[in-house]
Amino acid sequence: MLDAVTGEEVGRLSTSGLDLAGAASYARETGGPALRDLTFHQRASLLKALAGHLREHREELYEVSARTGATLGDSKFDVDGGIGVLQAYASKGKRELPAGNVLVEGDVEPLSKDGSFLGQHVLTSLHGVAVQVNAYNFPVWGPLEKLAPALLAGVPSIVKPATPTGFLTAKLTELVVGSGLLPEGSVQFLAGSVGDLFDHLTEQDLVSFTGSAATAQQLRTHPTLTARAVRFTAEADSLNCSILGPDAGPGTPEFDLYVKQLTTEMTVKAGQKCTAIRRAFVPEQHLDAVTDAVIGRLERVVVGNPTNPDVRMGALAGLEQRDEVRRSLKSLTDGGRVLYGSPDHVDVTDADAERGAFLSPVLLAADPDSAAVHEVEAFGPVSTLVPYSSTAQVIDLAARGQGSLAGSVVTGDPDFARDVVLGAAPWHGRLLVLDQADATTSTGHGSPMPQLVHGGPGRAGGGEEMGGIRGVTHHMQRTAIQGSPEMLTAITGRWVPGTTRTTTDVHPFRKHLEELRLGDTVVGGPRQVTQADVEHFAEFTGDTFYAHMDSEAAAANPFFGERVAHGYLVVSFAAGLFVDPAPGPVLANFGIDSLRFLTPVKFDDELTITLTAKQITPRDSAAYGEVRWDADVTNQHGDSVARYDVLTLVAKQS
Amino acid sequence: MLDAVTGEEVGRLSTSGLDLAGAASYARETGGPALRDLTFHQRASLLKALAGHLREHREELYEVSARTGATLGDSKFDVDGGIGVLQAYASKGKRELPAGNVLVEGDVEPLSKDGSFLGQHVLTSLHGVAVQVNAYNFPVWGPLEKLAPALLAGVPSIVKPATPTGFLTAKLTELVVGSGLLPEGSVQFLAGSVGDLFDHLTEQDLVSFTGSAATAQQLRTHPTLTARAVRFTAEADSLNCSILGPDAGPGTPEFDLYVKQLTTEMTVKAGQKCTAIRRAFVPEQHLDAVTDAVIGRLERVVVGNPTNPDVRMGALAGLEQRDEVRRSLKSLTDGGRVLYGSPDHVDVTDADAERGAFLSPVLLAADPDSAAVHEVEAFGPVSTLVPYSSTAQVIDLAARGQGSLAGSVVTGDPDFARDVVLGAAPWHGRLLVLDQADATTSTGHGSPMPQLVHGGPGRAGGGEEMGGIRGVTHHMQRTAIQGSPEMLTAITGRWVPGTTRTTTDVHPFRKHLEELRLGDTVVGGPRQVTQADVEHFAEFTGDTFYAHMDSEAAAANPFFGERVAHGYLVVSFAAGLFVDPAPGPVLANFGIDSLRFLTPVKFDDELTITLTAKQITPRDSAAYGEVRWDADVTNQHGDSVARYDVLTLVAKQS
Repeated sequence: MLDAVTGEEVGRLSTSGLDLAGAASYARETGGPALRDLTFHQRASLLKALAGHLREHREELYEVSARTGATLGDSKFDVDGGIGVLQAYASKGKRELPAGNVLVEGDVEPLSKDGSFLGQHVLTSLHGVAVQVNAYNFPVWGPLEKLAPALLAGVPSIVKPATPTGFLTAKLTELVVGSGLLPEGSVQFLAGSVGDLFDHLTEQDLVSFTGSAATAQQLRTHPTLTARAVRFTAEADSLNCSILGPDAGPGTPEFDLYVKQLTTEMTVKAGQKCTAIRRAFVPEQHLDAVTDAVIGRLERVVVGNPTNPDVRMGALAGLEQRDEVRRSLKSLTDGGRVLYGSPDHVDVTDADAERGAFLSPVLLAADPDSAAVHEVEAFGPVSTLVPYSSTAQVIDLAARGQGSLAGSVVTGDPDFARDVVLGAAPWHGRLLVLDQADATTSTGHGSPMPQLVHGGPGRAGGGEEMGGIRGVTHHMQRTAIQGSPEMLTAITGRWVPGTTRTTTDVHPFRKHLEELRLGDTVVGGPRQVTQADVEHFAEFTGDTFYAHMDSEAAAANPFFGERVAHGYLVVSFAAGLFVDPAPGPVLANFGIDSLRFLTPVKFDDELTITLTAKQITPRDSAAYGEVRWDADVTNQHGDSVARYDVLTLVAKQS
Repeated sequence: MLDAVTGEEVGRLSTSGLDLAGAASYARETGGPALRDLTFHQRASLLKALAGHLREHREELYEVSARTGATLGDSKFDVDGGIGVLQAYASKGKRELPAGNVLVEGDVEPLSKDGSFLGQHVLTSLHGVAVQVNAYNFPVWGPLEKLAPALLAGVPSIVKPATPTGFLTAKLTELVVGSGLLPEGSVQFLAGSVGDLFDHLTEQDLVSFTGSAATAQQLRTHPTLTARAVRFTAEADSLNCSILGPDAGPGTPEFDLYVKQLTTEMTVKAGQKCTAIRRAFVPEQHLDAVTDAVIGRLERVVVGNPTNPDVRMGALAGLEQRDEVRRSLKSLTDGGRVLYGSPDHVDVTDADAERGAFLSPVLLAADPDSAAVHEVEAFGPVSTLVPYSSTAQVIDLAARGQGSLAGSVVTGDPDFARDVVLGAAPWHGRLLVLDQADATTSTGHGSPMPQLVHGGPGRAGGGEEMGGIRGVTHHMQRTAIQGSPEMLTAITGRWVPGTTRTTTDVHPFRKHLEELRLGDTVVGGPRQVTQADVEHFAEFTGDTFYAHMDSEAAAANPFFGERVAHGYLVVSFAAGLFVDPAPGPVLANFGIDSLRFLTPVKFDDELTITLTAKQITPRDSAAYGEVRWDADVTNQHGDSVARYDVLTLVAKQS
């Protein structure tokens, strides 16, 4: 591995002689069980602690990062971006995942009319190892965006960096493993070739690959992967486009945003981003203005030693990478022309132009019908301007990339944005709409976000990473469980309607979190709802809707036929019937979910409320937890009139 | 193609000379646009109508089905099962999908602190064709379970049956296309080899395959599929297991259920089900009793001409299929022993044992350590009994199948069910718990359900089909959209908080469905909440919870610090502030979603409600539609005290 700026040797790497089958077994037998023993919340805490540890040591990472050709800005993009992914997963894990280690997904599916046979999907951690093959352009963010969801899912990882910048990922892994925060066997590091590792993978393992489309295709067909249906996800660079709206002519804020974003995407990380803009689609009437404005900005880009504060763009990752960009530029310039920069010459500041992997930003122009612009990617500071004449045409041009990671539309016109976004969406994993309103807060065309899916169809590899909790579930097996309510309750840890309810002399509101059991129930009522109650409530709240107050009008309503009680009155009376008023473990009712009014309540109907503990979620770091109660309000005929979940905070005993 | 019972020729099939590239283009250019023009609800209506049409003609299908070796019971399983999938998707499409043709998935993701930059995932229909390669064992259900989610997703299909029973799928397709219900180009039929079809597939196309693991592996590596990341899903037969619980000894209802289910799974469709039980795990102490009971049932199975009403089990799909089962039986009997039946001889009723593809049910026994029982599948009326001695062991044995479509646990013990189900889940797509409670309503080990995922990891192909709306989204591209609230509202057709609200002199409750616009808003209030209001509400409803009534106790509560108003009072007052009482287009408030109390309401706080039209969903078949309103109750400081969605039914104008 060579320093991208000076050409000096930084280190050497190899996997020869390593027992890679043993590495996989070690992950499965040591790391996996230890991670699976933790709850989602505990794993989220580990991610948070790990993020804090890396944050403390980030200067060390910046320092090594400079040797990959990265400016300080580039390094922050990579390092801080990666730490941000850990933090986002830590936070999502706490908020969106349950206290245990099984994820219950979606609603209970009724499979019989009488409710005695039900279905429920659950997700459990795979018992294998996640093999993470990373690209050279993000030696810190890349491994971390793969590692975070795997760890949260309870799956151990083997991290393999790309060779040119493997020394920075090695430093990262030293920090991760050296932190002592993670269970033994949960992260291993492998640099060089993958050797025979893939031969030893099983149906419980995963491979997630970031890199070239050609390598993705080769790995995808590995006989062990195809024979055992090993999960394989690929994220390949693609011919991403950015589209300027016809409304956004010179002088509009969107015009300036477009030009600024395009030059930024060309120069950040010296354009070595899978998400960078390769195809810049511009309304033909604005082409000249865009050309001039972009060139004006590119002329101010100082190329050179990335540690020099004047330098805006550093080196490519290595000379080999530069040679490849030059080869691609040759194909591109056959069908297009160079508007700015030279493939062969660049003035550099504070560095040796011969030894470092420097390249000028290159802006090209091409006709929309040029084949090369839609097929050939120069993985460096290179973009091509392409004119278009109609919305339909630009959607078609976007699709000619045959699948992209990211695209952007820069416009102030919501109609244009809608047409282009929905038209181009089948070919994109992510689409950004940039306008005045989000100009200062937008994270930009090129930045994948942990909350959103990263990956695109076709040429972009057909994979999907991150996307919040989706990235966690990619490491888990979805299983449909069928059974009786009692069995589903036992398996999922959620009380399912139809399961036995437990009523005792002790009101469940008098039980602390640890004492409460699924199925603990209080029944309140009956209470009659009189005409006087309804009229009183109407007057008190001001809700004099005709269906409650006017017999004739109510009779004409297609659902009621006569005057009915307010839904809000029904749930208020229900609370009056189930609440135990004295101070106790139940601290607050913080919400209600999925309330449905199922049967109208007529005058003199008698209401009964049945409230049953449905889900009990302790919080690791608080003196209380959340309890979700199933609330079923029935009338004197036994029909449900309202059904909902009541959410409470309940104190722990100790 | 030969009659499985008589050996007579039924027909011939070939794709030679067909323009398969043309077929794919025809689907993409004619069928796709026509389907995408329809809403999900309109496509659901087509599925419903198609189900009705096939139901009317099902006798014709039963008749052809008998020639595949199927008994009338088998035929109903196949034909009625397939129609049931269409019906289930029609119903789910209406209930769970939106009125348009874009599916908005998950919550809005905040991407900036000030709410000006947001993310939202949407799913749009792929612009390609779904190539559906089916297995020979379910010539009707198989194609329909692939076709239904594709049609609902707006993706045209090319249906390819397996050769031996292709004549029945041909009859089915005649009925489907002949119904005239579906848009031109939405379904095509191809029998024989797939020829060069795969060479012409693109990143917008899909292949879903059901069949042998070996063929799945071969198709998966097709260079066009791997180069263009064509979505490929496989569902292969697997070594499914059924586990008897230690509690379920002879004399228990679960013992009888286990024995009955095992013999049913062996004989239905002559055991030619990808989900059939191949490995029957039995506590060692119950092995002899299970053996005797199963043999007792198998002895009563009459094999022969499937149209003869005395016959319980018909023929295999063909002589080639029988030869393959016999070869597998050879491998299995090397490591095990035959308890019942013979691979080479069977008494047949009302048929020629030489010309028809008849086989006896064969029950085998094997040691848990036998390799063959976990590796070799005899795709016919064949199962193997295997004893086990502990819960941990049986979970391990289940996993040795290296991935299964379906498994079952027959037990009355919820603890055993939980341990085995969660332990075996990573290796299973579906797990059934069978006990007394669901014995009469259970659909059984072998029946995939449209509501639940069908497919399993590893040997089962690693694919996923059906699973309710999941099967629809498999035919769509997920795209993360980033932008300002205004832009997300324009693109998703859902009002996103932060988007401009429109308040006019006309109360939005006075607008019919067609007149209402996203963002239409009514602001009500302020209204002061006094101590008297709170005490009055407490007395009226009976909700005298201490936090509302007792200053000293409320002061000790960690969230309140002083007496606060009831949450139910807040939402009741809010309704009083936004409701427009006179009869009008708003017909009913049918529910509330995601209510959260965000800030305690103290005495004399002043409440303002802002209610904004968030989502407008017309119903095709009703004189009204659903309107979801964003409700935000704020106090005099502008803090949100409660936030929720109000759900109403609103009449159409005409």
